[in-house]
Amino acid sequence: MAAILPSARIGQLRPTAVNSILAEVRQMQAEGKTFVSLMRGEPDFRTPEHIVEAGQKALRDGRTSYPDNRGEPRLREAVAAKLERDNTLGYDPSSEILVTTGATFGFHAALTAVLNPGDEVLLPEPIYDAYHSPVLLAGGVIRPVPAAIENGRFVLHPEAIEAACGPRTRMLLLNTPWNPTGTVFSRAELENVAQLVLRRQLVLLSDEIYEAITYDGHAHRSPASLSAEMRERTILVNSFSKTYAMTGWRAGYCAAPAAITQAMFLVLQQSSRGPATFVQDACTEALTASQNCVQRMREEYAARRSLVLAELNAVTGCRMLAPEGGFFAMADIRALRLASNDVRRALMRDHGVVVAHGSAYGPSGEGTLRVSFATGGDTLRRGLAQLGAGLAALRATE
Amino acid sequence: MAAILPSARIGQLRPTAVNSILAEVRQMQAEGKTFVSLMRGEPDFRTPEHIVEAGQKALRDGRTSYPDNRGEPRLREAVAAKLERDNTLGYDPSSEILVTTGATFGFHAALTAVLNPGDEVLLPEPIYDAYHSPVLLAGGVIRPVPAAIENGRFVLHPEAIEAACGPRTRMLLLNTPWNPTGTVFSRAELENVAQLVLRRQLVLLSDEIYEAITYDGHAHRSPASLSAEMRERTILVNSFSKTYAMTGWRAGYCAAPAAITQAMFLVLQQSSRGPATFVQDACTEALTASQNCVQRMREEYAARRSLVLAELNAVTGCRMLAPEGGFFAMADIRALRLASNDVRRALMRDHGVVVAHGSAYGPSGEGTLRVSFATGGDTLRRGLAQLGAGLAALRATE
Repeated sequence: MAAILPSARIGQLRPTAVNSILAEVRQMQAEGKTFVSLMRGEPDFRTPEHIVEAGQKALRDGRTSYPDNRGEPRLREAVAAKLERDNTLGYDPSSEILVTTGATFGFHAALTAVLNPGDEVLLPEPIYDAYHSPVLLAGGVIRPVPAAIENGRFVLHPEAIEAACGPRTRMLLLNTPWNPTGTVFSRAELENVAQLVLRRQLVLLSDEIYEAITYDGHAHRSPASLSAEMRERTILVNSFSKTYAMTGWRAGYCAAPAAITQAMFLVLQQSSRGPATFVQDACTEALTASQNCVQRMREEYAARRSLVLAELNAVTGCRMLAPEGGFFAMADIRALRLASNDVRRALMRDHGVVVAHGSAYGPSGEGTLRVSFATGGDTLRRGLAQLGAGLAALRATE
Repeated sequence: MAAILPSARIGQLRPTAVNSILAEVRQMQAEGKTFVSLMRGEPDFRTPEHIVEAGQKALRDGRTSYPDNRGEPRLREAVAAKLERDNTLGYDPSSEILVTTGATFGFHAALTAVLNPGDEVLLPEPIYDAYHSPVLLAGGVIRPVPAAIENGRFVLHPEAIEAACGPRTRMLLLNTPWNPTGTVFSRAELENVAQLVLRRQLVLLSDEIYEAITYDGHAHRSPASLSAEMRERTILVNSFSKTYAMTGWRAGYCAAPAAITQAMFLVLQQSSRGPATFVQDACTEALTASQNCVQRMREEYAARRSLVLAELNAVTGCRMLAPEGGFFAMADIRALRLASNDVRRALMRDHGVVVAHGSAYGPSGEGTLRVSFATGGDTLRRGLAQLGAGLAALRATE
């Protein structure tokens, strides 16, 4: 009997760079090697105690029946209040907010709700490579928009976006703070993007999951808050994962005009039907309780960032792009004149330290490495030492 | 500024009958009416205490990091052991089992992983109408297969399946125990279906979520257990929702040959990424602990079923199809010679009781009503009294 043949669409999907590197790591671990990882984007904080307690209380209280598929009303109200408080955005909790099974599901719902087969999505690069497959799965076509390193940061020029636009271009994906580059779009930069979005009547898919983690006076601004017109053209995607160290809870939310929220809701109803009911209660607690836990984590990330910059800027041939937000720092190693993937492999093989190569995130990431400080403490210190030693050795043999 | 236009695919999606009826109920409630509902498929049991405690313990233990996207290894092993124990099925937990965000997600993943645009899916009817939209969203085309009432139960004839097959037919969806009909496929019936599946090289998408709830010696049998050939052509979908009263936890699982499990995994990675980590620990507890709680719920459903049959068989013009499984009973009201949707409306409007009309589940459901006994106690007793009175009144005015 013949095996079941998968759909042609499955052949387009590919594992992320992190997944591929993890497979390499596991293989080398099986051969007896040990590694320090500065690769993954998972905060090493435990979920704050009051949020965990809210989840436990909801379980004790029997909050285990079907959730409202749009999101529990209290949580949607809390999201609306949060968007007002933090982002000066007004959304109607009954019709303009959708609670999702993580930000990844928010994207999936947005892409499926908006794209027709063949519609093009502008994707700045280098960017988190897990965006690709959901676009393809929704029938979209990716148009990369190359960014460039200028004055120590990755910059996205409106001219580059414009040049990538064609008649089938439908959507622009923006991630600010931007993984992996660390760039936080300034107001002026966002206004340039907004002009183009409005002129071309694009949809802006705005990934704001790192919004709470910014440094040195850089502050996150929601593109939808720029104007009423931009609000009409934006789908805001956010999550509890990074802000509250809640990756394993699989919960996020979207905000968008009512018609498109309804379309996304219809997509969600055919698949996940939203996070568990008691999980949503914990999310409500996260948004409505004191935000001191967020501040404490931000301070810890800032200290780790300083350590990363100090340690690696001291390595000849390595110049750090100081991240304005998020918990990744890009190391500019163009001076080594080696392919970033070769550098990554050599660092793994000869120095026991795992980072992601910049080219995994797009050709404009070539000549860089992504260093995660989502994990701190001894892991970070040892990893930086091994990374520094490795880069110095590569420089010496060059 | 123009509003964002949803994708054309969204226009195909429709709310389920239950959702549409709920909207009617809410509108009439706003006008001051009150209702007893025998409509919904949500068990009124609380999740058993030991499962809730396992969830709480996992939260206390900090099980809040990213889950393994295929499902936590312990849970996949527990699923494999359960399939062996209850269904005499052997699946490799590392490559042939996928933990999903509920059975609804299992379908979505299976349909997306298998169907190419235009592929036809055979759908027996009357059937749970939430199957339709996910098929359309995956690009599939629905070919209904009419069932018929014979000897007091809905029967699906192989000739009817055969007659619905064409060159683009790719998949057959089977739900046993079958919502809403209550039919549990016998071994002989499954073997007839299997012959056809194998001869036509179809994929069998097997929804087994009501497997634990059967009556009068009827026992669930997994189609994949019929033969090695059938195992190769079957995607088994199951869930914790009905068996363990865990609807709000949003957790289920699939079992299928490795290549198609991998394809479904790739779909899942682009959207929900699976249930929360601590939820998966509670699911492991559900599968591995004593199954006495399942037995107790089954006994309670059996008592409710007896009550439903006794009360409604006593109503002239109403003949009950005794369900062999699940927690819905179909009332055959063809003697009333009225459209089932009109009967449903009259029962709501004039007798304050809510049921689903059989025609909502397909034309072969015309002349029936679906009566849920997922809720028991006083609600069920009052609902049955009002339903009986309503049917008698409709008969009298006929």
